[in-house]
Amino acid sequence: MSRHETVSELRVRYSETDQMGVVYHTHYLVWCEVGRTDFIRELGMPYADLEADGLLLAVAQATIRYRAAARYDDFIRIRTRLERVQSRAVTFGYELTRAGPEGPVRVATAETKLIALDRSGAPRTLPEWLIERFREVGPVHA
Amino acid sequence: MSRHETVSELRVRYSETDQMGVVYHTHYLVWCEVGRTDFIRELGMPYADLEADGLLLAVAQATIRYRAAARYDDFIRIRTRLERVQSRAVTFGYELTRAGPEGPVRVATAETKLIALDRSGAPRTLPEWLIERFREVGPVHA
Amino acid sequence: MSRHETVSELRVRYSETDQMGVVYHTHYLVWCEVGRTDFIRELGMPYADLEADGLLLAVAQATIRYRAAARYDDFIRIRTRLERVQSRAVTFGYELTRAGPEGPVRVATAETKLIALDRSGAPRTLPEWLIERFREVGPVHA
Amino acid sequence: MSRHETVSELRVRYSETDQMGVVYHTHYLVWCEVGRTDFIRELGMPYADLEADGLLLAVAQATIRYRAAARYDDFIRIRTRLERVQSRAVTFGYELTRAGPEGPVRVATAETKLIALDRSGAPRTLPEWLIERFREVGPVHA
Repeated sequence: MSRHETVSELRVRYSETDQMGVVYHTHYLVWCEVGRTDFIRELGMPYADLEADGLLLAVAQATIRYRAAARYDDFIRIRTRLERVQSRAVTFGYELTRAGPEGPVRVATAETKLIALDRSGAPRTLPEWLIERFREVGPVHA
Repeated sequence: MSRHETVSELRVRYSETDQMGVVYHTHYLVWCEVGRTDFIRELGMPYADLEADGLLLAVAQATIRYRAAARYDDFIRIRTRLERVQSRAVTFGYELTRAGPEGPVRVATAETKLIALDRSGAPRTLPEWLIERFREVGPVHA
Repeated sequence: MSRHETVSELRVRYSETDQMGVVYHTHYLVWCEVGRTDFIRELGMPYADLEADGLLLAVAQATIRYRAAARYDDFIRIRTRLERVQSRAVTFGYELTRAGPEGPVRVATAETKLIALDRSGAPRTLPEWLIERFREVGPVHA
Repeated sequence: MSRHETVSELRVRYSETDQMGVVYHTHYLVWCEVGRTDFIRELGMPYADLEADGLLLAVAQATIRYRAAARYDDFIRIRTRLERVQSRAVTFGYELTRAGPEGPVRVATAETKLIALDRSGAPRTLPEWLIERFREVGPVHA
């Protein structure tokens, strides 16, 4: 049974490299956010609109494993999927690959847990309709 | 006749380098902001407080000339001074140097013009007390 | 007489905003680099290849004027063109717009001068073939 | 039995905030790198020198938990300690606090595992003297 997954694409910017000649490690997490933005947009509700409605999703935990280096001008693909939905939090998983001569090379895998906050920064629950929407595209038991 | 000037110091972070082995060019402008924050703080009014009071200073123009490369772990000194005060704008000048074996080496000079905005992002005038405060430490004719 | 111009497109990332609710000013210069990368690629020689061949183009001067705010998730278009070619330097001009309900809104205009360096970071001349290539797509008298 | 720990300090830059009004989550990992740089420097061997000698330490895994928001101009303290030393890898732990009116507030805890690479990017072992040096300041059984 397949899981919903969105695919985002970008090219590595020069500003994202460091003196090791590869992408500085924190930028991969920025790319995960690009993937997350696309995932949420494809559900029919851009994250910008959620914020305008008073629902903020703040990163509460992030874990990332680096598998291979990404370099300037590499073509990066980010696969984003939902890992878990809770009443006050949602967890996304990411797989990042770069295009290589012999097919895609996995550069990193990551997971971020986001918690729901109101405009004042206080914890709140996710709206029921959003939990439903997440569940339609995410894991059944979570 | 001396001009008021503040001196800020920082070390180059690894994240600020690029694959050329030197600091990526936009980070020097971030350092200018560090200098500007210190300049404003030393006037007795942290910029964070100005914002809380409804005065936002947004960069409207920036010019920077790069003179020599800065590298990872270099010790950087930022000299900030006031170039011009207008009713709705203020212009700062910066000189950035790095410590070298034979004395400081100039890495960049820059200028940024900031305009006053209210909380809604609309242009406003600088409060009179702030213009006075700026004039006490800035150029007489401006 | 028309000038060669490339058009690059991107969406504003959350990481590029600041607490003023708009894009932090230095990121516009990163977008200019995205435009420059595309401009050079369309000439038939990716900048990554130039670097591999021992030609580095380092930003020596940058000027940017901010016209209107760009915000999270805005769709940004970068128009890049050649302003001037010299034996050791090349100057690019940029116009950045965001999509608005009544058409594109100009968010910034910028210019960056890049100087040619060899692998050791010493100044060098641009290769003759590259100057020719630039002149084919750039201003006639420069 | 106390563990060696270094303390680094910095102030939050405006560029590090996002439109939520707090520090964008990836910058905390940059601060961890500031702490790591200081930790290694205090062992008597700046990381810049290690790299010049052909030993690169690349982040292979990072985990971070966010506890409370950090804001513009906050005064941040980073405590860095060694968690584990292996023949080809070293793991650091970090605790980040901000100064608050009633004492320090914990903003994040993190862990990063770094693997040893040579100049070509191939895995290598840590030099024996460095493993010894790490062990002198790190956990006994690891």
